[in-house]
Amino acid sequence: MTTTPSSFVLNRRHLLGIDGLSASEITGLLDLAEEFVTLNRQVEKKRTSLRGRTQINLFFENSTRTQSSFELAGKRLGADVMNMSVAQSSIKKGETLIDTALTLNAMHPDILIMRHAASGAVELLSKKVDCSVVNAGDGTHEHPTQALLDALTIRRNKGRIERLTVAICGDILHSRVARSNIILLNQMQARVRAIGPSTLLPACAERLGVEVYRDMKEGLKDVDIVMMLRLQRERMNGSFVPSVQEYFHFFGLDEAKLRYAKPDALVMHPGPMNRGVEIATSVADGAQSLIREQVEMGVAVRMAVLEALARNLPNA
Amino acid sequence: MTTTPSSFVLNRRHLLGIDGLSASEITGLLDLAEEFVTLNRQVEKKRTSLRGRTQINLFFENSTRTQSSFELAGKRLGADVMNMSVAQSSIKKGETLIDTALTLNAMHPDILIMRHAASGAVELLSKKVDCSVVNAGDGTHEHPTQALLDALTIRRNKGRIERLTVAICGDILHSRVARSNIILLNQMQARVRAIGPSTLLPACAERLGVEVYRDMKEGLKDVDIVMMLRLQRERMNGSFVPSVQEYFHFFGLDEAKLRYAKPDALVMHPGPMNRGVEIATSVADGAQSLIREQVEMGVAVRMAVLEALARNLPNA
Amino acid sequence: MTTTPSSFVLNRRHLLGIDGLSASEITGLLDLAEEFVTLNRQVEKKRTSLRGRTQINLFFENSTRTQSSFELAGKRLGADVMNMSVAQSSIKKGETLIDTALTLNAMHPDILIMRHAASGAVELLSKKVDCSVVNAGDGTHEHPTQALLDALTIRRNKGRIERLTVAICGDILHSRVARSNIILLNQMQARVRAIGPSTLLPACAERLGVEVYRDMKEGLKDVDIVMMLRLQRERMNGSFVPSVQEYFHFFGLDEAKLRYAKPDALVMHPGPMNRGVEIATSVADGAQSLIREQVEMGVAVRMAVLEALARNLPNA
Repeated sequence: MTTTPSSFVLNRRHLLGIDGLSASEITGLLDLAEEFVTLNRQVEKKRTSLRGRTQINLFFENSTRTQSSFELAGKRLGADVMNMSVAQSSIKKGETLIDTALTLNAMHPDILIMRHAASGAVELLSKKVDCSVVNAGDGTHEHPTQALLDALTIRRNKGRIERLTVAICGDILHSRVARSNIILLNQMQARVRAIGPSTLLPACAERLGVEVYRDMKEGLKDVDIVMMLRLQRERMNGSFVPSVQEYFHFFGLDEAKLRYAKPDALVMHPGPMNRGVEIATSVADGAQSLIREQVEMGVAVRMAVLEALARNLPNA
Repeated sequence: MTTTPSSFVLNRRHLLGIDGLSASEITGLLDLAEEFVTLNRQVEKKRTSLRGRTQINLFFENSTRTQSSFELAGKRLGADVMNMSVAQSSIKKGETLIDTALTLNAMHPDILIMRHAASGAVELLSKKVDCSVVNAGDGTHEHPTQALLDALTIRRNKGRIERLTVAICGDILHSRVARSNIILLNQMQARVRAIGPSTLLPACAERLGVEVYRDMKEGLKDVDIVMMLRLQRERMNGSFVPSVQEYFHFFGLDEAKLRYAKPDALVMHPGPMNRGVEIATSVADGAQSLIREQVEMGVAVRMAVLEALARNLPNA
Repeated sequence: MTTTPSSFVLNRRHLLGIDGLSASEITGLLDLAEEFVTLNRQVEKKRTSLRGRTQINLFFENSTRTQSSFELAGKRLGADVMNMSVAQSSIKKGETLIDTALTLNAMHPDILIMRHAASGAVELLSKKVDCSVVNAGDGTHEHPTQALLDALTIRRNKGRIERLTVAICGDILHSRVARSNIILLNQMQARVRAIGPSTLLPACAERLGVEVYRDMKEGLKDVDIVMMLRLQRERMNGSFVPSVQEYFHFFGLDEAKLRYAKPDALVMHPGPMNRGVEIATSVADGAQSLIREQVEMGVAVRMAVLEALARNLPNA
């Protein structure tokens, strides 16, 4: 898409969320990511822009795809990457989150990638350290690189984000992916719908700038993008947990329900998928699915975030 | 052994087994591995032939030595190497093997090293991805790099493989190591014997091209190489599990039994060893043992496989 | 501190303990570490002095900070670094410590960093391998890089080690940190005091060259450095385990007890801290605390150890 190398710099120290990013910052990141899409398809997938920098992946929740994506992103940029296996860590010996962070900070990392089960934990920690912090998912709050990779996937396939109608379907209440996407899509002038059962919609969904639907047939009408969410039963503390069969019947995306959307509508899912729960295998693997491309865009977007933050470092 | 650098290319995308490799392909890999034996004994053990390539080690079964060996092999060739700890992965969240593979594939790895408990899982997966796949052990099927490292160890110590008599002893039934070795040794014109209790020999052992013995004294007579196998009690579902003492008495390799073989016979074991079960400590650590050299050859052979596959990549 | 690059070489193959190191070897390591303190504060934290060398971190006990510190040290020097997750290893399959070591040795590492729960295990292993071995903590014996980083931290803040009075407080009996520090501080002509309850002091404490106190008020009088130890309840097999409240009351370092020391006394702790057990939060985070600086010095000291050992390798 872009042909001249981007010189975009993210004039921030951290990327904690989509909230607060301007449209031009989002566009700058997506343009830079396009370069990395090209690089990653070559045999030699290597830059030296982060040579001598230290990236630490500090994951308090396990995640195959997000951690791998950040690990490859950093390594391809030439950084020294270290994974912190927190299950094996000092946390067990009673050390606090902040002690862990300050200990890492004293080792002079340049970028800390952090995932934590508690909303706000990443921001709290970012105030205690000297390095850049990237939020790789905090509780039900934000997951900004997921929203950016989704935006890049949409832009590459639809040519734009503006004025598209995007339906986000399923467990909106527990989803940091939904939250980051809603903020980004609104910022980029897309129209956003939230579709799900009442128990899985936040009470104030309309205030987020989305139209709320409780029925897939109505909600998917004239939609350009159908974004399915993972049913996160592990986060449902105390709320009503639907049965898998019932959930799939009413809210699972199968070929019949997909026909309510525009004929050229495209289907997305952040993964990992519960096939037969929130999405039918025929749709997940069908011609309208962008699910594999989302993973590819994930590495490119994370490289863009790392490089755009690194360019903002003193003496860089 | 070779003095001019090898330019051997493996004209295949994957290495899924020894089955189907020609004698000249096996020889080409062993010759290339000799270069890496030399390199690995130097202070600076480094090539840049895989610079910018991404190697992912996807181990669904834990293995210290095999995964380490592949990891060092890739790093010494300059690749970006990523280990996937599958116990911590999305598998737990209900994702299928194929989804995991397709997700990794979308990250554009160049080489995927895979171990799985199910025979055939590695081949299945190789059909779904765009990169090269190396089988690091699948069920009771094949473990090709083990057979190659064993062949390299034999060739270095005996000067040839052809016309040697090799006895593979123990739990042939559950052993992918045995299977890959039998195929390779037959392909290279060695004579292969299988020695073990009836319950641990496959029903069709003779069809594999081996002479079957149920007694160590007879089986070891005039043998050049004694290849012991690990007693894999974790794989013995439903079959007769011998007691350790009984097994050692009849089939464990001690100094007395080793004297049945040729005076210059050499002893091998793929590790990890059960000392006192299938092999006596005095033999494992004795003058006729090649067990440590096998480990050394393992890194060299894996470097050869990685480089020979990489040379076959488009634009490489 | 030093302005000309150090050419210090550690004329030893291993670093197994502080015991046996001369004052000039200690000073040489600290001087070399100063260069790495400077390097680590730069954006590009990279040397190539260990390029092509293989460093294996073999941790039989989990440790976030020590393993991370060694991992970053090796990577910043350009080594290929491999972590061995021993909980997932062949140990489970019944392989012995020595088999594991010999297996790794056959892969031609240059430096093996090892932590083990048994005193003496690291030295035992060092006799079996060809590479350099660095003790990252063995049982209740030694933890030499911790003592070196503590010495570097003291020297940077007090300008010297000689003639300072250092109080080591708490669980001396189970602490390899205490042991290594006592030996180093004695070697460097500091005066060392050990303060703790009788049950946590070794029977022969005086023979180690320390003055023994059982009361913090007396023991801290006129002290320059107060070095707190972690209460290691996991190591207290059979000995009296104090209650947390009682321990903190008598031996926990709070602001009141710290006032017994010199007004410019500095506080250290090897981490991870039990806040409210052996140290009060106000002291840990207070103006006299060097605890974060110790972590920073840890990476620099480990880089110095790795490089000083590597310079001693043949053909290096």
